[in-house]
Amino acid sequence: MIAVKGYAAKHAHAHLGPYSFERREVGVHDVLIDIRYCGVCHSDLHQVRDEWGGSIFPLVPGHEIVGTVSKVGSAVTKFKAGDLAAVGVFVDSCRKCDNCKKGMEQYCEQGMIGTYNAYEYDGKTLTYGGYSSSIVTAEAYTYKISNNLPLDRVAPLLCAGITTWSPIRHWQVSKGQRVGVMGLGGLGHMAVKLAASLGAEVTVLSTSVSKKADASKLGAHDFVVTSNDGDMKKYRKHFDFIVDCVSAPHDISRFLKLLRTDGTIALVGLPPESVPVDPFALIDGRRSLAGSMIGGLKETQDMLDYCAEKKIVSDVEVIPIQQINEAYERMLKGDVRYRFVIDMATL
Amino acid sequence: MIAVKGYAAKHAHAHLGPYSFERREVGVHDVLIDIRYCGVCHSDLHQVRDEWGGSIFPLVPGHEIVGTVSKVGSAVTKFKAGDLAAVGVFVDSCRKCDNCKKGMEQYCEQGMIGTYNAYEYDGKTLTYGGYSSSIVTAEAYTYKISNNLPLDRVAPLLCAGITTWSPIRHWQVSKGQRVGVMGLGGLGHMAVKLAASLGAEVTVLSTSVSKKADASKLGAHDFVVTSNDGDMKKYRKHFDFIVDCVSAPHDISRFLKLLRTDGTIALVGLPPESVPVDPFALIDGRRSLAGSMIGGLKETQDMLDYCAEKKIVSDVEVIPIQQINEAYERMLKGDVRYRFVIDMATL
Repeated sequence: MIAVKGYAAKHAHAHLGPYSFERREVGVHDVLIDIRYCGVCHSDLHQVRDEWGGSIFPLVPGHEIVGTVSKVGSAVTKFKAGDLAAVGVFVDSCRKCDNCKKGMEQYCEQGMIGTYNAYEYDGKTLTYGGYSSSIVTAEAYTYKISNNLPLDRVAPLLCAGITTWSPIRHWQVSKGQRVGVMGLGGLGHMAVKLAASLGAEVTVLSTSVSKKADASKLGAHDFVVTSNDGDMKKYRKHFDFIVDCVSAPHDISRFLKLLRTDGTIALVGLPPESVPVDPFALIDGRRSLAGSMIGGLKETQDMLDYCAEKKIVSDVEVIPIQQINEAYERMLKGDVRYRFVIDMATL
Repeated sequence: MIAVKGYAAKHAHAHLGPYSFERREVGVHDVLIDIRYCGVCHSDLHQVRDEWGGSIFPLVPGHEIVGTVSKVGSAVTKFKAGDLAAVGVFVDSCRKCDNCKKGMEQYCEQGMIGTYNAYEYDGKTLTYGGYSSSIVTAEAYTYKISNNLPLDRVAPLLCAGITTWSPIRHWQVSKGQRVGVMGLGGLGHMAVKLAASLGAEVTVLSTSVSKKADASKLGAHDFVVTSNDGDMKKYRKHFDFIVDCVSAPHDISRFLKLLRTDGTIALVGLPPESVPVDPFALIDGRRSLAGSMIGGLKETQDMLDYCAEKKIVSDVEVIPIQQINEAYERMLKGDVRYRFVIDMATL
């Protein structure tokens, strides 16, 4: 077994603190990655505090992992020691169901295996995430990343990037389309960059007028203060597609009315409670409210390659691991532009 | 002007009773139809009782209209006196917007003109529906119907038929697909017939086990009692597509979980209040909750032609107009299999 240092929560009401554990030996299809940076996702916080139920402690969070390969199994072909590599939200799936075969491993019919807070298919090996010194992953569930991008700013692509990229591609966002982005946080700022890079006309929909200048810098063409009913009315039937990155409770029907005929709102944030939907807002204009969850293996690699080509990275605030608990508090207040990333050298 | 006899509600708390009014003279593009049957839609009741707000009284309901052409304008080419003809939910639209040009007049950007309870584009001429002896309509907004079907049973196709046909076609229901139909009433029984006719494997999802035998007779292959959690669980991730014909409040998230990856529930019933939607139920499997409203002109004619070819009609209970108030009370209790149709000869 491989000895690993990390940060864990011991129970749902505990701060994260130093924790030592072991990972499996490098199998023939595995790579060992020395983790250099790990992004901090809002879902880390939800799971550390057991807000979705079923959290398994001690819990080592982190699923926006980038680092350097230090060892590879004998059957590995994609990586060699010294290569950069990345791991996202899942580390395995059944590999046999229709969804896995179609490259939609995130919707695996057996259930994908989360990078942390999950049991592997053996039913007993707990997965530990990227707030740690190293990780062992199957080559097939490990991504190639470019040497030409700042590594700390690549980390959030593994969750915030793919979570917004997947719906943008699935609903075929393209040049000239009017795309709305609800909520300018970790996910939202990536949605703006990615949709704008595809030639869409991007509008940020936010309660915080203070984010207007930032929205523009990120590539947005327009900004709507959503608390202003007059402004909201002006944008009725305006958008082809909206990515909803808001994880707080909100009145989605107000936003459905901003869609043109056959428009879709894709939920990627996860409000903790049900959202009320006005049936008239759906029926008028054959609108859709959909959900979307991260992305598949190929799709994630494609996104990383696309971002390398277009030089798209996340806007981050790099922190030492010792500041993680404070970072969670700031994240809760939306006080981060736009993603915390842990420098693992500080471990 | 043309003198017309009908039944109207004088105000939101009144029963329907005899009412005389006038319609416009037959213009060059118009047809005059002697109404023979008119279906009774749940939305008639909603509007008579002003449950959606904004009802205009006296209100003559009815938008499932079939009859015989008795006069045509000089420019009319599609009809001659003696032909059968039908009118549905709208009698005009702007004819210029993108949606009208695409044959989606029901989503006209100026707003379609309802067959009743609406003002025409002149802003002052009130429209009166089909609970009446005759109607004058523009040829372009009037449908051809077959001589080979029982006319009373054709009437409900104009709303119940097209309202279910349009989403079934839009979401490309096809042979072998698993289609769920929620609620076996006026809309639901048409959804079963239409989806089954396209080769789909149709399951009725209903609270009333008493409807099981009927579901089978209508062409359904399977039946789920939705109050039974165990049965609901068995059908998780089962359906490609569900048509939700329920107009009472209901927990839609339980049904979203019955969809496979990329599945859609299309709302066509209109619950009076917002429905709560669990974001996890959407995000897991990239599911969609959509709405759909009647259909466009060409689509409606196509549906009527298809039904003539396949001999698909509605199951109806024909009533004299004098029983309309009692019929409303029975409709409220779901006590109709499956659509009341008024015989206008009784007027």
